[in-house]
Amino acid sequence: MTLPAPMQRALALAEQGLYLTSPNPRVGCVIVGVEGQLLGEGHTQRAGGPHAEVMALRDAQARGHDVRGATAYVTLEPCAHQGRTGPCCEALAAAGIGKVVASLEDPNPKVAGQGFARLRAAGVVVEVGPGAAQSRELNLGFFSRMQRGLPWVRMKIAASLDGQTALQNGLSQWITSPEARADGHAWRARACAILTGMGTVREDNPRLDVRLVETPRQPRLVVVDSRLETPPTAALFEPHRDTAPGREAQPVLIYGAVTDAARQSALQARGATVVHLPNAQGKVDLAALLRDLATQREINELHVEAGHQLNGSLLREGLVDELLIYLAPKLLGAGRGMAQIGPLNTLTDAVTLDYREITQVGPDLRVLARLSGREPF
Amino acid sequence: MTLPAPMQRALALAEQGLYLTSPNPRVGCVIVGVEGQLLGEGHTQRAGGPHAEVMALRDAQARGHDVRGATAYVTLEPCAHQGRTGPCCEALAAAGIGKVVASLEDPNPKVAGQGFARLRAAGVVVEVGPGAAQSRELNLGFFSRMQRGLPWVRMKIAASLDGQTALQNGLSQWITSPEARADGHAWRARACAILTGMGTVREDNPRLDVRLVETPRQPRLVVVDSRLETPPTAALFEPHRDTAPGREAQPVLIYGAVTDAARQSALQARGATVVHLPNAQGKVDLAALLRDLATQREINELHVEAGHQLNGSLLREGLVDELLIYLAPKLLGAGRGMAQIGPLNTLTDAVTLDYREITQVGPDLRVLARLSGREPF
Repeated sequence: MTLPAPMQRALALAEQGLYLTSPNPRVGCVIVGVEGQLLGEGHTQRAGGPHAEVMALRDAQARGHDVRGATAYVTLEPCAHQGRTGPCCEALAAAGIGKVVASLEDPNPKVAGQGFARLRAAGVVVEVGPGAAQSRELNLGFFSRMQRGLPWVRMKIAASLDGQTALQNGLSQWITSPEARADGHAWRARACAILTGMGTVREDNPRLDVRLVETPRQPRLVVVDSRLETPPTAALFEPHRDTAPGREAQPVLIYGAVTDAARQSALQARGATVVHLPNAQGKVDLAALLRDLATQREINELHVEAGHQLNGSLLREGLVDELLIYLAPKLLGAGRGMAQIGPLNTLTDAVTLDYREITQVGPDLRVLARLSGREPF
Repeated sequence: MTLPAPMQRALALAEQGLYLTSPNPRVGCVIVGVEGQLLGEGHTQRAGGPHAEVMALRDAQARGHDVRGATAYVTLEPCAHQGRTGPCCEALAAAGIGKVVASLEDPNPKVAGQGFARLRAAGVVVEVGPGAAQSRELNLGFFSRMQRGLPWVRMKIAASLDGQTALQNGLSQWITSPEARADGHAWRARACAILTGMGTVREDNPRLDVRLVETPRQPRLVVVDSRLETPPTAALFEPHRDTAPGREAQPVLIYGAVTDAARQSALQARGATVVHLPNAQGKVDLAALLRDLATQREINELHVEAGHQLNGSLLREGLVDELLIYLAPKLLGAGRGMAQIGPLNTLTDAVTLDYREITQVGPDLRVLARLSGREPF
């Protein structure tokens, strides 16, 4: 089944919001006249800015087009609630749009069909379905947060072809190529937050910001740090300035499992938010952490860049949805693996995956794989 | 530069000899008339059988075509020596062929330009070059043996995406899929010999024959067995019948580093050839083993299916040309790696590769990579 051309265009517009719209979904809108001619188009802007439908209506107006009786193709149900912007369903109806073709229903409980209902009540014809799979895929993190109360967790790993992420002496810079590292920054840029562990902070002291690709916003940083050992001098506290004027990065989130007033204040003095979330073993409760990120911090896609220990914990607890693995064309032999799992007793205990996409990035190989059974939710 | 169509066809015919011609090269021949019409074609048969040129001449005769003044496209220099068959350059000249277009010179010192010289002496026009890269690639093992005195060594590894070839308890059947295993048999089929180590014989007791794809011949088996511990009951002694009537497999080759008359006779009683080839450390001298395989046993392509210890030794000694790695979509964590290398002190000590081809085989990924700097020889 081929998609109507305006919906294909609307999906392409939605994709232009990849680094921009979080925590809102990436949505595109195309308005066409009765003869199929383009009247206006647009995509959702950064949070607090206008949604795709309003951008398309404004675009049509700027072009001097009359949209009465026109059809609006939009990749997600127009919103029905007064959020940071007015409800889009009302804007469309008020402009005299005759028909709305939407890819799928907005999973946000504040919308969830009410946008369609209000459009129909206003006499607008509504068709739902074209582009549903693509739109959902583009917004998998948003759907995950709305439908599971969890972020979509993507774990990034850079390794040699024989699966080593570092030498035994800890050396890991750089196993993969500059091209792979830049590509990795593009995946950081689309995430709402980047998660790492105290081990990585201690060993690599990373900034974990987006530097190697252009981005209009920086993801938040999250550190799993059971004993609150992150040094206040850590590079990740260097201001990750949001590039829009007047905007600053949101506070670094540090999840700990101990109560230590002195350490906590030292971290807070660096602008961090410290969250106390211990499990019965005195470590950070990782499942609770993910719930907290989705429900309290509006995190859609979570990008994990951690060491083999935290990687192993997240995988063993079944908390990972997707792997993004760069395999450099080299063998390192004895070193540190991708994730501390096992030793397993049988092969059926393996963490099973489905390959989604294999791409060569510079001299390296990029493997995108999903953990089996994570979808659909 | 596009290849002349008859040469493309000749290369395709040569490829049909992939499982067949060893230790002879895979060669195709197409004879066309002055207007480019096909007169006859063929490819080299199994060792001792007719070469491509003779097959093409016979084919033209069977079709009732006169080849006088015609052009023969052949993917390797026509042979000039009386081997198991008569010299092809004479057969072509005798048939009245007017021109020979050959991909490249035969590296066999018994030919090495003499075929071209004899053709020219007989008044045949000779052009050399079209299809040279493809023909050499198809016969890389043959060129390696002729030019380096070594086989082309391809190491096959089946692993999880995190580089584990077995669990810590040794379990490894089956990490990869039936599709990957069948594909692995196709790579076995094109090799002259399959090499394994005593560790694999002890743990897996493999047959190491070609079963999952059709093949007109079976590769030889080679075991690295320093202490001559291969049990006479090992499955690899089960007759690997060559499928042509009246043919049997050649003896299993066992390379040892100890002198033990009793063990040696027990192995010989199972039809094995035992070769004593110790190094200074009392292990099998692997470099000498490869020289022996090329120069004494006519082994072009050597297919290695061994454990991480022997894999590591071959890689550390710089004896491997190519890796054929199947990566199953799973993580196993702690287990046995691909090859015992390291621990390295710096990343620059890594074994470096160049990816050549990435293919999905069933649910698995197949990575074909060459060790950097192994080519050209």
